[in-house]
Amino acid sequence: MTKAKKIEVEKNVFARNDEIAKQNREYFDANNIFVVNLVSSPGSGKTTLLEVTLTELKERLDFFVIEGDLQTENDANRIRTTGVQAYQINTDGGCHLDSSMIQKALQYQKSCIKKNSVLFIENVGNLVCPSYFDLGEHKRVVVISVTEGDDKPIKYPNMFQSSDLCIINKIDLLEYVDFDIDRCVEYVKQVNSKLEIITLSTKTGENMGKWYEWIEKNQKSN
Amino acid sequence: MTKAKKIEVEKNVFARNDEIAKQNREYFDANNIFVVNLVSSPGSGKTTLLEVTLTELKERLDFFVIEGDLQTENDANRIRTTGVQAYQINTDGGCHLDSSMIQKALQYQKSCIKKNSVLFIENVGNLVCPSYFDLGEHKRVVVISVTEGDDKPIKYPNMFQSSDLCIINKIDLLEYVDFDIDRCVEYVKQVNSKLEIITLSTKTGENMGKWYEWIEKNQKSN
Repeated sequence: MTKAKKIEVEKNVFARNDEIAKQNREYFDANNIFVVNLVSSPGSGKTTLLEVTLTELKERLDFFVIEGDLQTENDANRIRTTGVQAYQINTDGGCHLDSSMIQKALQYQKSCIKKNSVLFIENVGNLVCPSYFDLGEHKRVVVISVTEGDDKPIKYPNMFQSSDLCIINKIDLLEYVDFDIDRCVEYVKQVNSKLEIITLSTKTGENMGKWYEWIEKNQKSN
Repeated sequence: MTKAKKIEVEKNVFARNDEIAKQNREYFDANNIFVVNLVSSPGSGKTTLLEVTLTELKERLDFFVIEGDLQTENDANRIRTTGVQAYQINTDGGCHLDSSMIQKALQYQKSCIKKNSVLFIENVGNLVCPSYFDLGEHKRVVVISVTEGDDKPIKYPNMFQSSDLCIINKIDLLEYVDFDIDRCVEYVKQVNSKLEIITLSTKTGENMGKWYEWIEKNQKSN
């Protein structure tokens, strides 16, 4: 395949994805569903972040979760133990969710995703490919943990450029690893000066309140 | 694009990649260069593993390193401080290295990569896409760290199925995180019963000797 042909194929894939993402967003807007797309490396703590968040906020807000993984129903099962409903998408080896997968999930789960609710989509753990695919979300949240090194924003810039909030997780481990928060924040600002940042620990609960405020503020203003 | 068309495009991409990977491997074999492709999530500690390994072994073996990243020359610069030569590939947003990128690197660096040496290729940090692309390596080594959670082998099975060795890194942090080594090993065996496993810490040096033995044993038998 020539390079020109490859670029044409990619353009078609992205154009089709954007078209369906727009339809998804129109549906979410019509039903006042605030949608957050959570992206990160594998193991940064997205599922644990959701477990804690849902447990703390489920009396105040209605939630639904869509989980994306190559294989297994593990993450959806973990979410269900909080009492919140979850739908598992298996990509069967695919490296990211796309808007058509979300569209299908909506068709199956329409009756379960309430009006005036918050929908979390936990993407496949991958700091590269999910950055190229709009799912129809309102906000994209990139999670990194302090065990991953503070240089991730400049090494994976697309993900940080396309996100609205960066959560720096596992700050309870800061004293055991070489991670400079100030340097990480500087790198974030280099690639995206508008990106909001919250440092927190799902384990100790430190700064979880700031994350909850962010959810409630953005859900209201959506 | 129809699904059939998409599958055809993918088939072409993989066939072309395999063809060039074969040429790379022939070149490596003809020059007795032992090639290891290091794959992992972002931040699992591949570069630090290389820094420590090269510093410890460079008097006994000749090395060269090819670094793959979306952006920056950071990792190649880190490698060069050990005194070992390194070549940086920037994929410009691409989620994995492929065999043609390695072929080009070989053309540029032929005079620097010695006969009877060890070539480490550090892939883009991504537990999905690099698993589908043979670079012409002799051994693929997947690195996970204990901060990522013990379920990674079953959630990202392709990577573990296609690898020869699994390094479980950062065992110095075991007491601060929820990671069950026995369960992780069981998951590894579920997806690939032949995968060798070494648990180690680049920080304390624990079990680094096992990794050095693995390199020397496989280099000789290659």
